[in-house]
Amino acid sequence: MTTSSSQVAEKLVHVPLGERAYDILIGPGLIGRAGGEITSRIKGRKAAIVTDENVAPLYLEALTDALQTDGIEVASLTLPAGEKTKSLDHLAAVCDMALAARIERNDAIIALGGGVIGDLAGFAAGIVRRGVRFVQIPTSLLSQVDSSVGGKTGVNSRHGKNLLGVFHQPDLVLADTDTLNTLSEREFRAGYAEVAKYGLIDKPDFFEWLEKNWKQVFSGGPARAEAIAISCQAKSDVVVEDEFENGRRALLNLGHTFGHALEAATQYDSSRLVHGEGVAIGMALAYRFSARLNLASPDDAERVEAHLKAVGLPTRISDIPGEALPVERLMEAIAQDKKVKSGKLTFILTRGIGQSYVADDVAASEVLTFLELQKAR
Amino acid sequence: MTTSSSQVAEKLVHVPLGERAYDILIGPGLIGRAGGEITSRIKGRKAAIVTDENVAPLYLEALTDALQTDGIEVASLTLPAGEKTKSLDHLAAVCDMALAARIERNDAIIALGGGVIGDLAGFAAGIVRRGVRFVQIPTSLLSQVDSSVGGKTGVNSRHGKNLLGVFHQPDLVLADTDTLNTLSEREFRAGYAEVAKYGLIDKPDFFEWLEKNWKQVFSGGPARAEAIAISCQAKSDVVVEDEFENGRRALLNLGHTFGHALEAATQYDSSRLVHGEGVAIGMALAYRFSARLNLASPDDAERVEAHLKAVGLPTRISDIPGEALPVERLMEAIAQDKKVKSGKLTFILTRGIGQSYVADDVAASEVLTFLELQKAR
Ligand SMILES: NC(=O)c1ccc[n+]([C@@H]2O[C@H](COP(=O)([O-])OP(=O)(O)OC[C@H]3O[C@@H](n4cnc5c(N)ncnc54)[C@H](O)[C@@H]3O)[C@@H](O)[C@H]2O)c1
Ligand SMILES: NC(=O)c1ccc[n+]([C@@H]2O[C@H](COP(=O)([O-])OP(=O)(O)OC[C@H]3O[C@@H](n4cnc5c(N)ncnc54)[C@H](O)[C@@H]3O)[C@@H](O)[C@H]2O)c1
Ligand SMILES: [Zn+2]
Ligand SMILES: [Zn+2]
Repeated sequence: MTTSSSQVAEKLVHVPLGERAYDILIGPGLIGRAGGEITSRIKGRKAAIVTDENVAPLYLEALTDALQTDGIEVASLTLPAGEKTKSLDHLAAVCDMALAARIERNDAIIALGGGVIGDLAGFAAGIVRRGVRFVQIPTSLLSQVDSSVGGKTGVNSRHGKNLLGVFHQPDLVLADTDTLNTLSEREFRAGYAEVAKYGLIDKPDFFEWLEKNWKQVFSGGPARAEAIAISCQAKSDVVVEDEFENGRRALLNLGHTFGHALEAATQYDSSRLVHGEGVAIGMALAYRFSARLNLASPDDAERVEAHLKAVGLPTRISDIPGEALPVERLMEAIAQDKKVKSGKLTFILTRGIGQSYVADDVAASEVLTFLELQKAR
Repeated sequence: MTTSSSQVAEKLVHVPLGERAYDILIGPGLIGRAGGEITSRIKGRKAAIVTDENVAPLYLEALTDALQTDGIEVASLTLPAGEKTKSLDHLAAVCDMALAARIERNDAIIALGGGVIGDLAGFAAGIVRRGVRFVQIPTSLLSQVDSSVGGKTGVNSRHGKNLLGVFHQPDLVLADTDTLNTLSEREFRAGYAEVAKYGLIDKPDFFEWLEKNWKQVFSGGPARAEAIAISCQAKSDVVVEDEFENGRRALLNLGHTFGHALEAATQYDSSRLVHGEGVAIGMALAYRFSARLNLASPDDAERVEAHLKAVGLPTRISDIPGEALPVERLMEAIAQDKKVKSGKLTFILTRGIGQSYVADDVAASEVLTFLELQKAR
């Protein structure tokens, strides 16, 4: 992954959530400036950094130095990389580290890493002393455009993904675009699935722009920072309208009901599937399912699939390497997914590109039949 | 403990917290009516009851029957009794039970027991699916007058008490006064310490009333329900003013900084000290400390100690059975207590009976000297 990020102007997206409002800064070199950005916004002078084994060797020292330069006392914990780290056991370890470091209400827990670290560290920040300050320094594309914004935190349970957590908004998000230079192509693509998602939810023009400009987004430069900023703004808009997910926010789950089921059925084994890949397949399925229900045109479903394929993302269940996934296992995972209300299945369906909506009355039998059909493809 | 509760009229205290407003019902026979009270307030028809080994044999069947009669599907988990149950491990067990029971956002987790069960179950209700409904059925005096109201939930850490948790208000509190008939004298007394606390914070008349009427509160009857209702109202008033403990709510910690330190130093061993006993000693210490600082008169400190003694509560560190507690251990526990901001000690001090206030600049050295002096007493 190459980038010409130093020519990219910094972007700011403000998330206007009243008492919980915060800034998202997007641009190069932000880790080096983290100390000043934090001390100008947070009273405490202690920080507990949570990161993972891939990210620590790349950025932990630079961040620690930057914080110490501005007089912040730093403790840190480096955890294994991967979805399995989002567990109650690791949550306990993070909380213990923060308490040992005597993090108080006005001090910060800092997430330095992808969405796994962000979700875990944010959960800890939400429960240590019933809430301490929280700073996101997302280093994967997925976390820069999605998970670091909006305050959803959590860990997985044996019953499903993200079933335990709290809403705890960050006080600051620093999306340092330089960090994307060390991200693998595969992870960059996975994050791109969430970028495309914003277009598919309600921004047909953005989707069209991506169809034309995706190569520049991948190669870095102004188009990349532009895509990240548009994505953060899109997420912010939805979150501000529905902070606690009682309605519209569910739209952000486009592709996620299927996606989460695929992740669960592959036991969160990242060698087979990572979150964004699950979302890519899930979005393709959501469009195909909507076409099957005569809601969207098959052409739109084709167009979505074509674009995701062009960037190298999987779009079919059979694209997942390894043993075939039994439909029953997927149905079970879907039923336990948290977007189930009083027994009925809630799905994000669509009437076309950028015309998604929340359907809360989807019959399980329809889903089952649809999934059975996918086996033949 | 005897009671004439059937003659006591039911009392209602409403906690006006906007979207999070709820009712506290106080009176006899409420467990038998739990189904109707819940179904009229909560949409879901599933409930996960959390209780402990002392309370389960007494009330779990009655509650289960009452809920099932009103069409609520019930799952339950019975945990060991005692403060050690407030741990992340038990939290994981409660969450797992609730998820296995497919508790969704509109279903309820129900706490049936004392403050330990309430704090633990409430924490679980705050994090399962990022928040499900929560019903408190407090069965100890302490939980009826204090812990079941106000939305503070949590568990202990090796670094100190209640260091992990969330604010999660209940949707309903059912304080069934009949359950107090099976509570031990010792636990009833411990709960009484929190009743007296409300008088000592800012209700000198209530404290005076208690000095005259405490025997009737202990023996049951109208004075008992009256004292519980006044206590709930007092707690509600403070919580409504400062839901997230940024200021005035800290007053409820009168006696608790010392109390928590004593609990920690005795390793939460209930054979030596239970929470309310720690609070009783803590309040006596807070008044003596305030007298030593020339804030309150020694007469007031004497009066507080005399009343607590009269009802049979401990008032001195040396009243705790077992080996003497080193002052250093207490200081360490105080320093790690969560009412510490940027290094300074926050204490609730007092200018007299019912004249408590938050002091956030108490020098550690003063506390140390004061505690050293207590050894001689
Ligand atoms: N909270 C939310 O709103 C939200 C939204 C979307 C996704 N998520 C969660 O986010 C998680 C997925 O996030 P993710 O894709 O970032 O996963 P991740 O955190 O596992 O990161 C992906 C991989 O990239 C590595 N990595 C991260 N930054 C790097 C860098 N700069 N250089 C080299 N390697 C780097 C990580 O070590 C990891 O191996 C899932 O758990 C998902 O549930 C949460
Ligand atoms: N959340 C808050 O705002 C808040 C406020 C004050 C205290 N607390 C917490 O509450 C806890 C103390 O509460 P507690 O004193 O109720 O402790 P507890 O829950 O341990 O109950 C005390 C004992 O009484 C038993 N018991 C309870 N009800 C009974 C009944 N009806 N009959 C017979 N036995 C019964 C229990 O099994 C236990 O052995 C502490 O953990 C404290 O930190 C929380
Ligand atoms: Zn996602
Ligand atoms: Zn208490």
